[in-house]
Amino acid sequence: MEGPKAILLICDGMGDRPVASLGGRTPLEAANTPNMDALAAQGVSGQMDPIAPGIRAGSDTSHLSILGYDPYAVYTGRGPFEAAGIGMDVQKGDVAFRCNFSTVDANLVILDRRAGRIEVGTDQLAAAVNGMKIEDVTVFFKESVAHRGALVLRGPGLGAAVTDADPHEVGLGIHDAHAIDASDAASAKTARIVNVFVRKSYELLKDHPVNKAREADGKGAANIILPRGAGVAPHVDGFEKKYGLKPASVVETGLIAGIAKYLGMDIIEVPTANGGLDSDVMAMADAMVKALDDHNFILSNIKGGDIAGHDGDAAAKVKFAERVDAVIGKLMKSVDKETYIVLTADHSTPISTKDHTGDPVAITFWGPDVRVDSVKAFDERSVVSGGISRISGTAVMPILTQLMNVQEKFGA
Amino acid sequence: MEGPKAILLICDGMGDRPVASLGGRTPLEAANTPNMDALAAQGVSGQMDPIAPGIRAGSDTSHLSILGYDPYAVYTGRGPFEAAGIGMDVQKGDVAFRCNFSTVDANLVILDRRAGRIEVGTDQLAAAVNGMKIEDVTVFFKESVAHRGALVLRGPGLGAAVTDADPHEVGLGIHDAHAIDASDAASAKTARIVNVFVRKSYELLKDHPVNKAREADGKGAANIILPRGAGVAPHVDGFEKKYGLKPASVVETGLIAGIAKYLGMDIIEVPTANGGLDSDVMAMADAMVKALDDHNFILSNIKGGDIAGHDGDAAAKVKFAERVDAVIGKLMKSVDKETYIVLTADHSTPISTKDHTGDPVAITFWGPDVRVDSVKAFDERSVVSGGISRISGTAVMPILTQLMNVQEKFGA
Repeated sequence: MEGPKAILLICDGMGDRPVASLGGRTPLEAANTPNMDALAAQGVSGQMDPIAPGIRAGSDTSHLSILGYDPYAVYTGRGPFEAAGIGMDVQKGDVAFRCNFSTVDANLVILDRRAGRIEVGTDQLAAAVNGMKIEDVTVFFKESVAHRGALVLRGPGLGAAVTDADPHEVGLGIHDAHAIDASDAASAKTARIVNVFVRKSYELLKDHPVNKAREADGKGAANIILPRGAGVAPHVDGFEKKYGLKPASVVETGLIAGIAKYLGMDIIEVPTANGGLDSDVMAMADAMVKALDDHNFILSNIKGGDIAGHDGDAAAKVKFAERVDAVIGKLMKSVDKETYIVLTADHSTPISTKDHTGDPVAITFWGPDVRVDSVKAFDERSVVSGGISRISGTAVMPILTQLMNVQEKFGA
Repeated sequence: MEGPKAILLICDGMGDRPVASLGGRTPLEAANTPNMDALAAQGVSGQMDPIAPGIRAGSDTSHLSILGYDPYAVYTGRGPFEAAGIGMDVQKGDVAFRCNFSTVDANLVILDRRAGRIEVGTDQLAAAVNGMKIEDVTVFFKESVAHRGALVLRGPGLGAAVTDADPHEVGLGIHDAHAIDASDAASAKTARIVNVFVRKSYELLKDHPVNKAREADGKGAANIILPRGAGVAPHVDGFEKKYGLKPASVVETGLIAGIAKYLGMDIIEVPTANGGLDSDVMAMADAMVKALDDHNFILSNIKGGDIAGHDGDAAAKVKFAERVDAVIGKLMKSVDKETYIVLTADHSTPISTKDHTGDPVAITFWGPDVRVDSVKAFDERSVVSGGISRISGTAVMPILTQLMNVQEKFGA
């Protein structure tokens, strides 16, 4: 497209803390990242709290916040974004869940939460349960990858403050979902529907031909569907309406694709981007550059750093940072003079904790006309002295859109 | 006055971005400003977002925010502050507009939006339309400078979400104002009143002796009044009530004078301060110092930097910064030991964009007992490392009033 454009590249979980095996450096500090460092040297940098200082963000809530949607207002659970991410129609007020196909015995005790990581036939199983009516609620179910799926309940007076039917442990019986607050009639109704749905899924799936064939092969039957992560589908202004930008996403996980889809972004698929440490990140870079032909805002999430963090593997995280560095090099060489690159992370996943923490992450804005500061390296501590100082995630889009000169002035 | 006092000096639009013709420096960085730099060296500095990071502030919304009034709560349009600025009585709930005297033909097609920039006789024209009743609404109109004026509607059930009657272009017919949202009955009523007023203004002005005389001289008649910029007059606590300070303003533009007046500040006129690049800024400095005799808070806005920014004239902006530097020198020499000086800008108006941007601006607090930091120069990038770090405009008055020791403690 003509005019100012931007790529917002979010390195999932890339933030970290000092790691002893790296001589007290973070992975980003230890990695050899000449392109990220050049980006910082030519840009304006600082620290960013994805939601607010110290808040441990999920990837979903963090992305919402960075894209300018207050997660406290729009996020009640992961379900609606997950469902949207696999292409389900999710409407304001729907209650949606993430689900697993699981294997249970005749007493509904869990034998395998992931039904032998079933790969084939879940579309047929999904068709068997999709579209049923329970009370005045219509139930939509769709399979996702492997044993995963999503459930959408549509009907009057539903709430999302319900417990999970999934007991999250082998050898336990399935749980009855119930409203977290007994006086919350809307959530009690949802729990009632869910409990009927779970039992009906067992009745409809236990003798399904797909499962008969699995059992004949010595595989566990995918004979029940267990919902979790209930959320109410929020009303949001689409990204294009909110900012006047034509957006596309180049992301690896269903979770982030779900958010991108929910916000109305075009979804660019990169078949060789597998979300792992060996993902084809250069193909993602190519896809981002190509997407700028007919979009002026690209959201990208590259997942590997988070995986290395959850694994507690410092060497892998260093190496993955160096792989992302090549992506930055490619982007800096390929974009035109009117394009901004914003490089950051959605949260820290430190080697030491193996889970998300509330530490701030580094952020650099690179492109025409920025107030270049004295920061020379892109990492958690080098950016502390930068011109951005310390901002919250919700400041990212205002800062970017005024640089791109697409933001309305407030006042005279 | 005795005791702590403060001068809040806001350099309109002084913030900027790196300018190629200045060797990649901003005008403040390029300018020779020994007094501003001394102020920073003896004070505590940082970056300030007038409204919030990245938000493109107008001068009006920015001044409200810096003075401690949330513009999202009190600002719906420019009209009420404009009307207050020319001395009209504006009451909570009134809907007010900025207006032009314009010249139209008999078909109400615009011949000149500014009625030949009429200078004389507008008070008589205003008297002809002021005070009329339309439905249950009383209409107040007062002339301002040249072709400008303000309209205040007072009556029950008025809204301000209306379109402009001014078509903003020569050769077009006047527009019928209408409610932006058709279901907004209050704004629909306002639109109805405005449309009657505009037509009545034509009937009352077209044959007015002032216009007959103009036509005899070959000048365009000021034969219609076109409102724009509707806003609802908000309830605000006056500045003196809010802070316990006795305030005066030394400002150059009607827009900022309007805000000062609305907040109940005394207005100190400096006849030689013309709002231009050649304004008598030293006379403004003298007026500020003198006003401290019987006030303990002075708001000053010096306009020139914004003009140079809108003109894209880097050299003029550098030169004007040096003129303001002399003002700071004068103030530092003239005030007593109990006086604070706060130096900042209301927004950036970069040479490169010629319009307001959402970049943060520099701010320095100077006076007794501040935590002097290591910043040695007053400009966008030197202050980044300062003790103030990065704050929003609404933090300025709390920081200042606790330094002045006039703020109540919250809690025990």
